[in-house]
Amino acid sequence: MTAPHPRPAQTLTTSRLEALSDGVMAISATLLVIDIGRVRVGEHEKLLRAILDNWPSYLAYVVSFTVIGLIWVAHHGMFDRVRAVDRPLIFSNLALLLLVGFIPWPTQLLAQFISDGGRNASIATAVYSFVMMLIGLVFTLQWWYLTRHTDLMVESVTPAQVRRSLRLSWVSPVVYASTIAIAFVSPYACIVVYVGLAVYFARGPSARALVVGGQSAPESGGL
Amino acid sequence: MTAPHPRPAQTLTTSRLEALSDGVMAISATLLVIDIGRVRVGEHEKLLRAILDNWPSYLAYVVSFTVIGLIWVAHHGMFDRVRAVDRPLIFSNLALLLLVGFIPWPTQLLAQFISDGGRNASIATAVYSFVMMLIGLVFTLQWWYLTRHTDLMVESVTPAQVRRSLRLSWVSPVVYASTIAIAFVSPYACIVVYVGLAVYFARGPSARALVVGGQSAPESGGL
Amino acid sequence: MTAPHPRPAQTLTTSRLEALSDGVMAISATLLVIDIGRVRVGEHEKLLRAILDNWPSYLAYVVSFTVIGLIWVAHHGMFDRVRAVDRPLIFSNLALLLLVGFIPWPTQLLAQFISDGGRNASIATAVYSFVMMLIGLVFTLQWWYLTRHTDLMVESVTPAQVRRSLRLSWVSPVVYASTIAIAFVSPYACIVVYVGLAVYFARGPSARALVVGGQSAPESGGL
Amino acid sequence: MTAPHPRPAQTLTTSRLEALSDGVMAISATLLVIDIGRVRVGEHEKLLRAILDNWPSYLAYVVSFTVIGLIWVAHHGMFDRVRAVDRPLIFSNLALLLLVGFIPWPTQLLAQFISDGGRNASIATAVYSFVMMLIGLVFTLQWWYLTRHTDLMVESVTPAQVRRSLRLSWVSPVVYASTIAIAFVSPYACIVVYVGLAVYFARGPSARALVVGGQSAPESGGL
Repeated sequence: MTAPHPRPAQTLTTSRLEALSDGVMAISATLLVIDIGRVRVGEHEKLLRAILDNWPSYLAYVVSFTVIGLIWVAHHGMFDRVRAVDRPLIFSNLALLLLVGFIPWPTQLLAQFISDGGRNASIATAVYSFVMMLIGLVFTLQWWYLTRHTDLMVESVTPAQVRRSLRLSWVSPVVYASTIAIAFVSPYACIVVYVGLAVYFARGPSARALVVGGQSAPESGGL
Repeated sequence: MTAPHPRPAQTLTTSRLEALSDGVMAISATLLVIDIGRVRVGEHEKLLRAILDNWPSYLAYVVSFTVIGLIWVAHHGMFDRVRAVDRPLIFSNLALLLLVGFIPWPTQLLAQFISDGGRNASIATAVYSFVMMLIGLVFTLQWWYLTRHTDLMVESVTPAQVRRSLRLSWVSPVVYASTIAIAFVSPYACIVVYVGLAVYFARGPSARALVVGGQSAPESGGL
Repeated sequence: MTAPHPRPAQTLTTSRLEALSDGVMAISATLLVIDIGRVRVGEHEKLLRAILDNWPSYLAYVVSFTVIGLIWVAHHGMFDRVRAVDRPLIFSNLALLLLVGFIPWPTQLLAQFISDGGRNASIATAVYSFVMMLIGLVFTLQWWYLTRHTDLMVESVTPAQVRRSLRLSWVSPVVYASTIAIAFVSPYACIVVYVGLAVYFARGPSARALVVGGQSAPESGGL
Repeated sequence: MTAPHPRPAQTLTTSRLEALSDGVMAISATLLVIDIGRVRVGEHEKLLRAILDNWPSYLAYVVSFTVIGLIWVAHHGMFDRVRAVDRPLIFSNLALLLLVGFIPWPTQLLAQFISDGGRNASIATAVYSFVMMLIGLVFTLQWWYLTRHTDLMVESVTPAQVRRSLRLSWVSPVVYASTIAIAFVSPYACIVVYVGLAVYFARGPSARALVVGGQSAPESGGL
């Protein structure tokens, strides 16, 4: 914010990009609730039963809201260390937001078909994994770009730290890619992996990097 | 913002967390209107009648919008006194936002079934109370955590004041928990309690604490 | 923002209240588009015809978006002159936001019934006018409160200027109240009045007051 | 932000106008996902087939999200060079937001009818082009106004640069106007033009102007 050094030419400070990103992430997360949908109760059916039968919707809501929360954490972990954005970062960030804004759709697909079992459940889960893998890849791409343009980073960050972030950023797309295959064996196993990945990032270096806030190692890695 | 003392290591200033939280609260409150739904008028029905028959939707909208407004007041009452957030606060705050973003769903459930009477009305009201109780418990958890980490608070706040906020933060989850039981006696009685709780917080020490803004006792307590 | 004088005790600066208000207004305005709904084309119907037949939806969208835009202008016209908010202002502002967030509902009602003609069109228009009248009354209430608490205003504002704003703030609720009656004569005449009121505020002292930004007379009045 | 020169009388700084604009753009872009809609699978139909058959929805989502992203870039390209807004800029900006908030509707129309072929596809595409042309015209109008009121610009911007921006701002409305005609020959050709225009702006002077951030030529032109 108050960096004593001038930002590189042809760049923009990050505050507006962060404001737009925070907006899209907040809206996308909150729109998830729309797809939970109304509980329909038949003539002789019990409401509590109908509410409980709706469990895939709640599960999908919690998983996707958590993922968006972790994307927000990872995004700030990155842009806390970036002091200026140039055109490739602006447009890769718009691609990231396009994918984040899309999350409610695969979420609703997952909620609709996970309890169907069979091939439909596998395909819905694979589509969900595919979208998440793409999001992870955009983060990897951005970290790779930053290893090449370390002048865009705040001064306290060393090139070795950026390279470390790049390596860590591979975890998320690789794990999500593997769940595309796992989906055809067991969609529920994918849910377990999603939750495990969330716990890993919530406990792991990505979150730690965020809260360190640039005063220490920029270990933030991808999703 | 301009605290003369450095923030503790491994922490983050609160401004971004507040921006995301304000976004989710504003969106969740405004999404409530989507569930009011279209008025359907039959062949020989009068529109005014149909509009008036829709009263549970308006009631649910007003109750939930007010609750979200009070959560916003309580949230600022807390983070006005917090000068830095660490990982447990970031993730408990994401849990809070997950629940706040979920509010439109129990609200629509309440609107749909409160006028049905009988068991369905009780269950819908109990579910609503349950979600609100969880939100209150997250606030209590956060105040409890802050009593253990007073270095995260702004300097003018004394440990005694934080403990007082913790005690006050129990009001909301305890009252909402009690309405889970009351729902099975009279759902309408729950609405009365919800309104009473809103009035209590609007008039009471929670709101007073907010407007004092850290210059006086941090009495802010939970929802 | 950087007033050299301390804010009064028991108050809060206005920045957060404005951020929440901007959020609710932006969301409410943008949600209006959801109610325009899909165009349905029958077997032998032409799409262009179906799109044009949907005109009440576009009209209602434009009228309500414009009204929310003017509310935003009036809101900033007020809070540019307010340097601190106390509890009554916070809660009257939440009431304002509750009503602004509700606007998509009467808008959709208007779009649905204005072209029906007869009593339904009158009732839908009257409901729309009623909600807008309530919004105007909250502004009037706030200006009245500010005439009693001029210490909450920025220093350059004189009590006479606040009283002038209070008088101007009556225009909007009085005009909207009159359209409740007009709706039962001619709903379309109400639309003409809505547009006229928008032009009046866009050209009139309210907008002028906004752009003057506190350096001149605070003529901002209501909606 | 910290311009050493006073802003002209009867004007407002741009920060709030930008905050509202960012909000509407973020919400409008994210609401696009709602119209993608649920995938319906018949008895003997395959889910993957149904998902793939839904391609017009994804295409329309990507095109419109990208367009809103570029509008955001162009908007900041303009307001980075504007140091104060007066009433015509405020109200033309509200008109811009009204149109941006409307984008989900023509987007859904395009998604619904593009694969129909025939006249309906042409009309849906022409309506889409028409709305985009209007958005481009508002930018042109604003640049024209700024050539007449260069005192509203930051000091480093020369009148020649503003005139250059005005000339560039004609690209977008002229191209979109031409696609209204092209739509009746081939709707798919319009999609190609939309994508080409997006690439032009992403690579071209508009984006370059943004990232230069006022330190160089203000080449930002329209959409």
